[in-house]
Amino acid sequence: MRFEVHILGCGAALPLPGRNPTAQVVNVHEKQFLFDCGEGTQIALRHGRIRLMRIDHVAISHLHGDHYLGLFGLLSTFSLLGRSRALNLYGPPELEALVLAHERAGESVRGYPLHFKSTQTDAPEVLFEDGSVSLESFPVRHRIPTTGFLLREKPKEPGVKRDWIRKLDLTLTEILALKRGEDVHRADGTAVLNVQACRVPLPPRSYAFAADTRYWEKVSEWVEGVSLLYHEATFDASMKERATKTFHSTATQAARIAERAGVGQLVIGHVSARYENADALLEEAQAVFPNTIAASDGLVVQVGFIPVKN
Amino acid sequence: MRFEVHILGCGAALPLPGRNPTAQVVNVHEKQFLFDCGEGTQIALRHGRIRLMRIDHVAISHLHGDHYLGLFGLLSTFSLLGRSRALNLYGPPELEALVLAHERAGESVRGYPLHFKSTQTDAPEVLFEDGSVSLESFPVRHRIPTTGFLLREKPKEPGVKRDWIRKLDLTLTEILALKRGEDVHRADGTAVLNVQACRVPLPPRSYAFAADTRYWEKVSEWVEGVSLLYHEATFDASMKERATKTFHSTATQAARIAERAGVGQLVIGHVSARYENADALLEEAQAVFPNTIAASDGLVVQVGFIPVKN
Repeated sequence: MRFEVHILGCGAALPLPGRNPTAQVVNVHEKQFLFDCGEGTQIALRHGRIRLMRIDHVAISHLHGDHYLGLFGLLSTFSLLGRSRALNLYGPPELEALVLAHERAGESVRGYPLHFKSTQTDAPEVLFEDGSVSLESFPVRHRIPTTGFLLREKPKEPGVKRDWIRKLDLTLTEILALKRGEDVHRADGTAVLNVQACRVPLPPRSYAFAADTRYWEKVSEWVEGVSLLYHEATFDASMKERATKTFHSTATQAARIAERAGVGQLVIGHVSARYENADALLEEAQAVFPNTIAASDGLVVQVGFIPVKN
Repeated sequence: MRFEVHILGCGAALPLPGRNPTAQVVNVHEKQFLFDCGEGTQIALRHGRIRLMRIDHVAISHLHGDHYLGLFGLLSTFSLLGRSRALNLYGPPELEALVLAHERAGESVRGYPLHFKSTQTDAPEVLFEDGSVSLESFPVRHRIPTTGFLLREKPKEPGVKRDWIRKLDLTLTEILALKRGEDVHRADGTAVLNVQACRVPLPPRSYAFAADTRYWEKVSEWVEGVSLLYHEATFDASMKERATKTFHSTATQAARIAERAGVGQLVIGHVSARYENADALLEEAQAVFPNTIAASDGLVVQVGFIPVKN
């Protein structure tokens, strides 16, 4: 099953050519979740050949312009393209009023229902779940109320191997027992051992987007053991004071959170416009947490099956 | 003196790669006026190597997303870049509240004063003037309240030729008389003829942006005799009904307005995403008004000294 993060933009507050503001679209089991929606995201989606109409969930971390100003154009484009399917929007409470204010100003009629669920910054919260995935928000520490988002695959039940079902002519009752982890003892004295008859399911994968945040150890609890963590790294270690003051993180701090949380892989983004590229920040982070990569516009990262520490 | 229109975006409601939504920056005598500011305008400004801080006037025609959603990011970028000089913003009354709502949501502090002047759709109105240029709004007919904008050079006084001043040792009184158009009769019986001693000033140039509008003959009165007219041409003539219904114009209608108004040159834009390029629309307009060009993202049009019909 697909689980990949397509980075549409990973720049910081100042948008520059080739450095779009923050947005990622995550495809998990062919469901598309858009995390943040900076100015120009709809164009970045088209550049990435992502089918806009497949996006059913948009989650906004906070109301700084570089994280949400592309939303209003995208919502309008959905209507122009004839969308009728409902869209789920998650974000700070003020976001809904802004959406409605823009619609009122343009006297525009949305062609589809918008289900808005406001986020809070007290504790992690499940925003959405279905049979195979769940979406949670978790608080981070930024200048204004901000949440990260965590997308998890649900654990899969162990499946009974098809050839064993056929070979042993297993009954439904026997199959269900095996799925529950039991061994089956038959009337003829033979036994079907769960450990032999069942496939071990792949471990569930997870992706966390820690948005804009200063270094906050609590974040490592919220994202503990995720397969892939996107953590901002606006500054290098020499600018730690400025990072704290502006409620941002250094590359070292991002890597420390990844290490504390025991994540599979770290991707750093939201690099300040003062850096020509992320090379130095990447090196800095890798010194603390080697399995780190740098985000770049257009990069697609597969969420891997990296064993969770425990 | 420079007078040029840099087209940053000329697409219609649906932004596509390479077809930015509406925005033009006009440099008149090194003063920069931004007309409309669709999503992505700040990136287009950087692509065009236009110095953002030189923009002191932003005029928004109406509150459809493709004409103003880039404004909030641009205003924030001004602050990030350390702007302290005041910015003049012109647009529909609701625009100011939207700006303030976004600033409130982000708890952001603007580093510079914003002077907002709301536009109205009853009659043309001077929004700004200084010694050398004036900016007017004029009503057009669109689905929601919309104005066009007209930027005019002020007529220059005739100047007395330098070599005549030197040769005849003209006094200040004599120079002022010549500038007023008078001939000078000296005590020694000689005369200095205005027609000989003065340079004929270049005629004032003007640029009108007719925004989004259905065909409305009144527009040709507002923009009568302008050097360059930007008129929308969303559809071709075969879609006249749809144009009327959606309060847009066909290429033929744009050309008719240009012809009625006796403008120097017409540039058509806001071409619907249904057309791969503007070729057919351009041909259609040129059949009515030959001196027509098609807008394209990045195009810079010089506002020419084309004699005004009268």
